[in-house]
Amino acid sequence: MSEAIKTYDGWYAFHDFRKIDWKKWKSLNPSERQQIIEELQNTLQKFSAVENDRKGSLGQYAVLGNKADLLFIHLRPTIDELNEVKFQFDKTGFADVTSTPYSYISVVELSAYTIPPGVDPYSDPAFRERLEPILPKTQYACFYPMNKRRSGEDNWYMLSVEERQRMMRSHGLIGRSYAGKVRQIITGSVGFDDWEWGVSLFSDDPLNFKKLVYEMRFDEVSARFGEFGPFYVGSRLTSEGLISLLTDNIK
Amino acid sequence: MSEAIKTYDGWYAFHDFRKIDWKKWKSLNPSERQQIIEELQNTLQKFSAVENDRKGSLGQYAVLGNKADLLFIHLRPTIDELNEVKFQFDKTGFADVTSTPYSYISVVELSAYTIPPGVDPYSDPAFRERLEPILPKTQYACFYPMNKRRSGEDNWYMLSVEERQRMMRSHGLIGRSYAGKVRQIITGSVGFDDWEWGVSLFSDDPLNFKKLVYEMRFDEVSARFGEFGPFYVGSRLTSEGLISLLTDNIK
Amino acid sequence: MSEAIKTYDGWYAFHDFRKIDWKKWKSLNPSERQQIIEELQNTLQKFSAVENDRKGSLGQYAVLGNKADLLFIHLRPTIDELNEVKFQFDKTGFADVTSTPYSYISVVELSAYTIPPGVDPYSDPAFRERLEPILPKTQYACFYPMNKRRSGEDNWYMLSVEERQRMMRSHGLIGRSYAGKVRQIITGSVGFDDWEWGVSLFSDDPLNFKKLVYEMRFDEVSARFGEFGPFYVGSRLTSEGLISLLTDNIK
Amino acid sequence: MSEAIKTYDGWYAFHDFRKIDWKKWKSLNPSERQQIIEELQNTLQKFSAVENDRKGSLGQYAVLGNKADLLFIHLRPTIDELNEVKFQFDKTGFADVTSTPYSYISVVELSAYTIPPGVDPYSDPAFRERLEPILPKTQYACFYPMNKRRSGEDNWYMLSVEERQRMMRSHGLIGRSYAGKVRQIITGSVGFDDWEWGVSLFSDDPLNFKKLVYEMRFDEVSARFGEFGPFYVGSRLTSEGLISLLTDNIK
Amino acid sequence: MSEAIKTYDGWYAFHDFRKIDWKKWKSLNPSERQQIIEELQNTLQKFSAVENDRKGSLGQYAVLGNKADLLFIHLRPTIDELNEVKFQFDKTGFADVTSTPYSYISVVELSAYTIPPGVDPYSDPAFRERLEPILPKTQYACFYPMNKRRSGEDNWYMLSVEERQRMMRSHGLIGRSYAGKVRQIITGSVGFDDWEWGVSLFSDDPLNFKKLVYEMRFDEVSARFGEFGPFYVGSRLTSEGLISLLTDNIK
Repeated sequence: MSEAIKTYDGWYAFHDFRKIDWKKWKSLNPSERQQIIEELQNTLQKFSAVENDRKGSLGQYAVLGNKADLLFIHLRPTIDELNEVKFQFDKTGFADVTSTPYSYISVVELSAYTIPPGVDPYSDPAFRERLEPILPKTQYACFYPMNKRRSGEDNWYMLSVEERQRMMRSHGLIGRSYAGKVRQIITGSVGFDDWEWGVSLFSDDPLNFKKLVYEMRFDEVSARFGEFGPFYVGSRLTSEGLISLLTDNIK
Repeated sequence: MSEAIKTYDGWYAFHDFRKIDWKKWKSLNPSERQQIIEELQNTLQKFSAVENDRKGSLGQYAVLGNKADLLFIHLRPTIDELNEVKFQFDKTGFADVTSTPYSYISVVELSAYTIPPGVDPYSDPAFRERLEPILPKTQYACFYPMNKRRSGEDNWYMLSVEERQRMMRSHGLIGRSYAGKVRQIITGSVGFDDWEWGVSLFSDDPLNFKKLVYEMRFDEVSARFGEFGPFYVGSRLTSEGLISLLTDNIK
Repeated sequence: MSEAIKTYDGWYAFHDFRKIDWKKWKSLNPSERQQIIEELQNTLQKFSAVENDRKGSLGQYAVLGNKADLLFIHLRPTIDELNEVKFQFDKTGFADVTSTPYSYISVVELSAYTIPPGVDPYSDPAFRERLEPILPKTQYACFYPMNKRRSGEDNWYMLSVEERQRMMRSHGLIGRSYAGKVRQIITGSVGFDDWEWGVSLFSDDPLNFKKLVYEMRFDEVSARFGEFGPFYVGSRLTSEGLISLLTDNIK
Repeated sequence: MSEAIKTYDGWYAFHDFRKIDWKKWKSLNPSERQQIIEELQNTLQKFSAVENDRKGSLGQYAVLGNKADLLFIHLRPTIDELNEVKFQFDKTGFADVTSTPYSYISVVELSAYTIPPGVDPYSDPAFRERLEPILPKTQYACFYPMNKRRSGEDNWYMLSVEERQRMMRSHGLIGRSYAGKVRQIITGSVGFDDWEWGVSLFSDDPLNFKKLVYEMRFDEVSARFGEFGPFYVGSRLTSEGLISLLTDNIK
Repeated sequence: MSEAIKTYDGWYAFHDFRKIDWKKWKSLNPSERQQIIEELQNTLQKFSAVENDRKGSLGQYAVLGNKADLLFIHLRPTIDELNEVKFQFDKTGFADVTSTPYSYISVVELSAYTIPPGVDPYSDPAFRERLEPILPKTQYACFYPMNKRRSGEDNWYMLSVEERQRMMRSHGLIGRSYAGKVRQIITGSVGFDDWEWGVSLFSDDPLNFKKLVYEMRFDEVSARFGEFGPFYVGSRLTSEGLISLLTDNIK
């Protein structure tokens, strides 16, 4: 039996993907739509207001392609708050014109691989900020879930701590070479959702997502041990941007 | 041919996942909703009343993420009682505003790996209680189905009893190190549902689910032989909590 | 090239799984429901009447869990009769309140592995009865489809006849040790449906399904070569039982 | 790099599977149904009329099980004609009461494995007829798509031409031993659909499908290299048979 | 750790597959349909007008088989323009009679494997044109996504740059032998969508798609390392062709 590396857990994350039923939306009359937009704005303002007291964070994105239209990323200190967020949103009139093609439940995670010995992330302010992050206000976001492979010779969980540490450090170097260009938030989902981790990337240039993930794929830890789920890329929506998306070109 | 280890079977389990159609629910008028809630409460009270005579158990949870909204776990001595539970529930007005994205059929199971020689679990009161458990009233629950792998060199069912026993004991030690923090109910589903086992975890801190499952993943029995299905995590609903979930913020 | 073992084929089988749309069903008025039930009863009586002349067989079951509600197993001498059964049923009013989440097409099969040399199953009355079986009237039934694996070293179809025969005999011994407790009907579906075989088990105690399948999984033929599809377990419905299921607790 | 074997391509094939929405169909009034049937008959007559000038072929089948109800196999010289067939059919009133659970796009293919050296199939009348075949009027048809495996040691595309030729010849011998009993039409779909080939079998006894495919599975080319998709089996419908299917027992 | 090869990225691509709900479409009255067609034409004209200033490109195709009916390929310099295209289209009346069975997000990509040393594709006009291509006006198009395999001995990302280069050159030779017959546009989707690359092929003879992809499959880079997603083939639609498709034979 190999030894599990210690992980440090911060805020819980709920990635809530939505697809808009445009036909339903357009079939409403303008005043119904107006009312729904006001309710949606109030709800989202309440959700994002937690950032002021560092009690959580909200990111909202227009998703590319037809797998989803919108992504709301909610970070909160407890799972109960995420549950409340979910059910509050589901009860809005806006939720009625959406479906839920995908979602992800996880918790912001730092692993001992990347933490200098002797540091306690829970009390160190810099690490604490990484455990309880305000979502970066970059123009683009990328999300994908992943596993570490357990297959024949390529079994991550049968490696020694030393081997894993060596590979994770090399992996971390790639990440660090994108400092200032891509911000990563790693969330752990073992026990919570169908993959082991979620990866949320933030950048002002979406090409950086491709470059970073592609470069990492040649790194042994990804090449031999990475299993990847669906990929989503989105463009950040301000409050006004979301309203435009819902109202522009609709009579 | 390797030898099958003896298993002891207790109550049957029905994990019933439901997704609420909020639009349909809200389209009902308040008195219709009130009537449906009363019928739902009566039905669930009848279902949970079996706990008083130790004739079964009921747990109800609000599920995180968009894979499901509610999870009802029913334990009953016979499969026929579970069938009755299913059809009774399906005929309620509440069931009409739900869909059934997932379910699981299994039976509470103890395996000889974990039972001291000479003990008959069916007559030993402590083991009996584990075979016919009242669901823990912890604040959180986690469920996932799993297989033991049969792939090339990693074929659980080709190992000797001794090897399997050695690995299951080491595995059990991790579980025991979470005593008081996480309660596990293992249910067998070979012949009943699509995976070989269901794992139901109960805790007052959901992080314990992640810690336990992550630590176990480095254990040889999981690392080499575990195949995992979808993961669900939920927050326990009292009768009042369920009503709040259905009525709060709905005009 | 290895040699195919001879198989003997009997009646064709159609496993017809149905999910009931309870909301639609309840939205009908009592006289509509009454009429549909009468039509359903007439149709099923016609279908089961074939048993009298040994021209086929019908089994009907309430399926556990949410994958399906009902299972009708039809056995008939020809594929055309199964087609007729299908389309007759699909045209009933009852079919309109159901959906078809799964089905399976196969043919009752005996393989030369289990037949003494010199016996012609088609003319031997005991074997003939196994090829053209009346479905056992046990209280429970279990169904799952399966393949023999063809993967790297574990390739069933690359083994010699002798190796296959040896393993199938050991496998058969487990089955025979459940004589009187579990009745098995093996149906072949190569060329007919997505898996190579269907396995239908019949017992008065559903735990026997779990015990038998679990014990077999340690047998080399299952451990190394078995690939299993979805599992379904059901409880037998008499004509009255089916009506109760459809009418009890419905106003 | 291994050498690709030459293939000869004939008519394009469109396997169009349809599921009937019986509830919708029955909800129409008799004259609407009559009108739809007449339009359907006209459309199918036009589609099958191409056989007279050897400009294509049409086969229509009632499919067993619940995966589909009808299969229309269209063969045509060009992809544009198939496109026209598709959109003409989709615009009929009958298409409105169907859904499209599966379809397959491919092209009739002969490979150099089976062609004597010096023969040009495009000019040899016998081979030409196999490239541009009128669909056999047998009572039953079977369809499945397949790949040649590329996995570890079992990588078809890494074998030498000689090895492939040897195996394909042995494979062909099995096929030929069913001459007069089963007619095979192999269609290639590399670049057109999700599998590499489609296999359409025609016989007056459906058991022959099972026997042929089962016997072939022990042949090295199938045992080690065959990957199989879904299987469909159907019973041929004459024009009258299709009308009966749609009208019998419907008021 | 192996070294990632440099890639050069051009325009972003959105492959937008649509299935038409013919029943809904036909249920509209002729003037509603006329209005929707006019709006659709205006929208598509705006989308294709970008070609005049080399600010993007639009291709529209009738897709064969039942997986989709239409494919719109949009190329644009930025992801935001693709997002705008998506939401503009989704708000048209035509989008209301379609569903979205598939889509793909990627970016036109040249890799250093195929670029002579010393050349900067961004400033070389010929390479620039390949990075920012106007979609060929060929009669047929083919699309499929793919991965490079990472499995046991067949792990593309563990090979040395030299090995990869050698194989990609051999691969490129096949492509080049189809010069004048098939035009390829390779788009990278690591970090954007579920596979690593999209392949769009253009030809005036659809058989060329089959020949090219089949020949390449024997090339080591495909044989050992290619994993292929769904394949789609379509026939180019002019503006008039699209209108015919929507109006011919509809009363």
